[in-house]
Amino acid sequence: MTAADSVFAPDPRIAADSAFLIDLALCQARVMDDVRFPWLVLLPRRAGLVELTDLSGPERAALMEEATLCSQALNASVPCDKINIGALGNVVPQLHLHVVARTRGDAAWPGPVWGSGPAIPYAPGALATLTEKLVEQLGAAP
Amino acid sequence: MTAADSVFAPDPRIAADSAFLIDLALCQARVMDDVRFPWLVLLPRRAGLVELTDLSGPERAALMEEATLCSQALNASVPCDKINIGALGNVVPQLHLHVVARTRGDAAWPGPVWGSGPAIPYAPGALATLTEKLVEQLGAAP
Repeated sequence: MTAADSVFAPDPRIAADSAFLIDLALCQARVMDDVRFPWLVLLPRRAGLVELTDLSGPERAALMEEATLCSQALNASVPCDKINIGALGNVVPQLHLHVVARTRGDAAWPGPVWGSGPAIPYAPGALATLTEKLVEQLGAAP
Repeated sequence: MTAADSVFAPDPRIAADSAFLIDLALCQARVMDDVRFPWLVLLPRRAGLVELTDLSGPERAALMEEATLCSQALNASVPCDKINIGALGNVVPQLHLHVVARTRGDAAWPGPVWGSGPAIPYAPGALATLTEKLVEQLGAAP
């Protein structure tokens, strides 16, 4: 293991496409800068993770509960007909879990958000406003 | 709640696209009849479920562990560069979790399997052979 492997940091592609939201017990939560979909990404804060099988059972359970918290925060903050959850990692191998609020008729509905074309960044200030709402919800979670 | 709501059965669309694999502690595991991707679907055997938040915390943890078992069974049975996991439900609302073995250069790589075009059914006998392999792996799991 090299020094670079031993310290958690979000993959540069994820970091470039998203903004820091909050550190939960296991994961760093980030929000994608894509106005088409209210979209969170959870990254377990441990270096070298790729598959869910790289986590322990209790860590997987914690990841699931943090995904549930994110679902509830999205539901309380934005219009939402369905939550989509996915762990793909075909492009960015670093283990990350997507939690996305979908609405009927959104830019990819009913297809998946992944591979649905380039992101459309939020207008200035709008991402910060969403982030504040979500942090308020997540910070208030038990 | 009507009688139809109170008994678990796979959604007819999922049932038509897949074959029964095994009943795990929480979920019915099914295998999609699509030779492009070795692809399992987990359905918690309770009626009326839509979102992960419809499960209790322990049930979510159990679902995660059954997804892990399916990942391991796929890894042991078929070529696999990456496991993809997803709970979408935009088309079929009944709660179900996809566990898919991906290989670099497969029919949708690196995009998602969902929305990647029509399934290509296995040749006669091939789905049964895969099912046997997977049941052997899943049946042997602790």
